[in-house]
Amino acid sequence: MTIKALVFDAYGTLYDVQSVAAATEAAFPGHGEYITQVWRLKQLEYTWLRSLMGRYEDFRVVTRDSLRYALDTVGLPAEATVIDGMVEAYNTLSLYPEAEQALRQLEGNQLAILSNGSPGMLAALTRNSGLDKVLQAVISVDAKKVYKPDPRAYSLVGDRLGVQPEEVVFVSSNGFDVAGARCFGFKVARIERVAPAALRGELIGGAAVGPAAMFRALRTQDEALGFAADAVAGSLLDLSGLIGSAIR
Amino acid sequence: MTIKALVFDAYGTLYDVQSVAAATEAAFPGHGEYITQVWRLKQLEYTWLRSLMGRYEDFRVVTRDSLRYALDTVGLPAEATVIDGMVEAYNTLSLYPEAEQALRQLEGNQLAILSNGSPGMLAALTRNSGLDKVLQAVISVDAKKVYKPDPRAYSLVGDRLGVQPEEVVFVSSNGFDVAGARCFGFKVARIERVAPAALRGELIGGAAVGPAAMFRALRTQDEALGFAADAVAGSLLDLSGLIGSAIR
Repeated sequence: MTIKALVFDAYGTLYDVQSVAAATEAAFPGHGEYITQVWRLKQLEYTWLRSLMGRYEDFRVVTRDSLRYALDTVGLPAEATVIDGMVEAYNTLSLYPEAEQALRQLEGNQLAILSNGSPGMLAALTRNSGLDKVLQAVISVDAKKVYKPDPRAYSLVGDRLGVQPEEVVFVSSNGFDVAGARCFGFKVARIERVAPAALRGELIGGAAVGPAAMFRALRTQDEALGFAADAVAGSLLDLSGLIGSAIR
Repeated sequence: MTIKALVFDAYGTLYDVQSVAAATEAAFPGHGEYITQVWRLKQLEYTWLRSLMGRYEDFRVVTRDSLRYALDTVGLPAEATVIDGMVEAYNTLSLYPEAEQALRQLEGNQLAILSNGSPGMLAALTRNSGLDKVLQAVISVDAKKVYKPDPRAYSLVGDRLGVQPEEVVFVSSNGFDVAGARCFGFKVARIERVAPAALRGELIGGAAVGPAAMFRALRTQDEALGFAADAVAGSLLDLSGLIGSAIR
């Protein structure tokens, strides 16, 4: 089967969500690590829970509400202007260092993003990072009002790009997204941003297991959901070598 | 509107899921806290993700897979007999100390459980704890093959008890469950097992924020999902005073 499109998850795969840590630490000195991690953990929980409840709100709302939750747990003031400013940080997330070069290597393929982000957030993010010039499509789940890993979210790829699921290589570092995409029928490359051995070393190394380690433990590893990726890569730069060999 | 039934969540509300900590520490000395918390966090994530993916497996499977995930992250052996033994611990969870007295105070009302647990797990758990003699119904989401907070799970209460949503007081300590039950149309009493002030003290007290504190931060507080409980109680013993006054 010919591969007709490479579709990337945005948050955590092309863009480093941990790059908000500087903004959270600046706004709430001494609490940056905790807030960054609870914010991101809760943000994804809310996408799942709202989808299950049939109460979709877009990712800007979910990002705001999850930040407010994180701040409430430590009793920090959650003024609207501060919240809005921190949510804005999602519009200027850093690309992973290798992302642009990796995408250039893959030019000639149809390249797209499928993301939980709202259309407005994704437009700002791809424009601010220059990826709007490299990608042929930026697809938001907002068109279906449901979040990944609901299959309706993944179905947008076929709707927009006119391809069959097995003609798509989906690329994600998020375990739940890998499972959801594989379950939907895409070929899937998992980007392993935290190697299991490195995580083990961190968790059993004797140091306290803090919020950042808990995040890595919960959200960077292969999920035990029965839908493993077709290939695992340590970096986006490995993708061009996998396409046509491990993934065909 | 007359209240016709009081329906309780099981895990975390009547039964203390943290009571597996002794079993995890005994099986994996030095790692009990970490494994207990990642296990429980991941267990609920898997109920949500499987529901979204349309790939239901019962709670015994989810409990086993999430434990395996937790053990994998620290590189501990996950032999089938060890895993099975630890999953069995869910059949003998401790009741919260006040649970039985609280249920006795409420006798005369129709009392039931609605739980993610599989029918087999719930039968063993209620028998082992003696609650089978107090409850009129033990309802598992398994009949719908979907987990809370999907509204189809809550709809089982009406199917089984012949009551309208607004005739039900649903009782849960789990924030996601409170939101889901309220969204469905039940009256909801939230059991606040960890007071916000106590959590703040723990999180900003200067000590490292470890796995148990992260669990409490993520899963014991009121969720920012827009569906607040009708009443909040610090203990199950407060319920009899709330019924007919704060909740009517």
